Amino acid sequence: MNDRRENEEFADSTWIEGRNAVLEALRSGKTIDKLYVLDGCKDGPVQTIVREARKQDTVISFVARERLDRLSQTGHHQGVVAQAAAYAYGTVEEMLERAREKGEPPFLILLDGIEDPHNLGAIIRTANLAGAHGVIIPRRRAAGLTAAVARASAGAVNYTPVAKVPNLCAVMEQLKKEGLWFVCADMHGDVLYDLNLTGPIGMVIGSEGEGIGRLVRESCDMAASIPMKGDIDSLNASVAAGVLAYEIVRQRRNLTL
Amino acid sequence: MNDRRENEEFADSTWIEGRNAVLEALRSGKTIDKLYVLDGCKDGPVQTIVREARKQDTVISFVARERLDRLSQTGHHQGVVAQAAAYAYGTVEEMLERAREKGEPPFLILLDGIEDPHNLGAIIRTANLAGAHGVIIPRRRAAGLTAAVARASAGAVNYTPVAKVPNLCAVMEQLKKEGLWFVCADMHGDVLYDLNLTGPIGMVIGSEGEGIGRLVRESCDMAASIPMKGDIDSLNASVAAGVLAYEIVRQRRNLTL
Repeated sequence: MNDRRENEEFADSTWIEGRNAVLEALRSGKTIDKLYVLDGCKDGPVQTIVREARKQDTVISFVARERLDRLSQTGHHQGVVAQAAAYAYGTVEEMLERAREKGEPPFLILLDGIEDPHNLGAIIRTANLAGAHGVIIPRRRAAGLTAAVARASAGAVNYTPVAKVPNLCAVMEQLKKEGLWFVCADMHGDVLYDLNLTGPIGMVIGSEGEGIGRLVRESCDMAASIPMKGDIDSLNASVAAGVLAYEIVRQRRNLTL
Repeated sequence: MNDRRENEEFADSTWIEGRNAVLEALRSGKTIDKLYVLDGCKDGPVQTIVREARKQDTVISFVARERLDRLSQTGHHQGVVAQAAAYAYGTVEEMLERAREKGEPPFLILLDGIEDPHNLGAIIRTANLAGAHGVIIPRRRAAGLTAAVARASAGAVNYTPVAKVPNLCAVMEQLKKEGLWFVCADMHGDVLYDLNLTGPIGMVIGSEGEGIGRLVRESCDMAASIPMKGDIDSLNASVAAGVLAYEIVRQRRNLTL
């Protein structure tokens, strides 16, 4: 399944290869989700590309020639292949601005390590319909805005900004200064229906396998558990995100009724 | 995408081929999700198989020899190939019995035409954790219990019964006699938070493309809409099912507090 999913991702991404094309893409500000560089290559132009990529905090993977050859579609990669995002990323500032424009308390969704493109797409779709102002994902260990994610989002990527940030905790600290409270979905938390989720809020959803990272969890003000009466461990991540997002919708609605 | 998904389903199903094996499977009560028969074949043994399959209301597809050859893995299909369910189906009676045993008002989830195995699996997973007593799917135009569905359910297929029925409306009429009320997810309905969802209930979710069929919708007592503040049309079907199922959980919980 993983291989198939990875291949699906590969087929959907925008691939850029060759030294000039990759350098041009980086300098033009195009978002590179991942840069593959020939391991051990000391050529000047390749070093320039690596420097430029580091400046932009791009994830770099140093790989063997065989791997690059397989990634290459033209056969002329010259030691560098870049996987570009199929859709443009937004900024956190843009999300806060949307909330201000609408006169609503900010409502953001933060994802800690969602790697499944179906889940990421479904969550962006939920964010759009629940009236969240944006989705924030970390730069590493997360699915990017590929065509598969866009499809699973039913086009919501065109309306709801998705920001990719180097460090979720740093962004959370910054957003706390803007008055946001953070609630994470956590089976050991308080039942979500008993929490007050009406103010400016960021809800945090962890990956299915590993949940939310320790540091991110510690940055949260509240932990919300979804009642589980069954035999298995956890809801699908996009379903859990939907249940929590709509509890926020319900509580905000009661406030205005 | 569709081709790939179909292939994934195919690879995961249990395939039975050859006249004796297929007839044996039918007579032993094994659930056949679909029977492929060589179009125009008038051989006695094949006619016996078709009669037996019709008796059990199995979906039969009459196909050209080329199609059968492609479906066949041994090359010796003798005009019949059957796609068996990877997991055993339950019965509606079994679900009502579970509710009685637990002393809970019945809570069933009915799916009208969910064809995506990821969605079906995620909904069975939600059913398990939300404390629903079972999931009911129609025999036609729906994903069956394949290995892909089992995987997406995170193992919930082993705990929560899934019944496959010839006609959803007929089952709904029968369940109304047992005191159940039916609510469907429908964007033109009343906001779900304003409905009373506390009694014995069956919730109905339609397919993403076509929603709920007219007859099934007309059999429902209530229509519940999930508030949508965004730019796109609808939530992912498994997310919508999660939001509605957990509103039922929330209302039942308030009742017992």
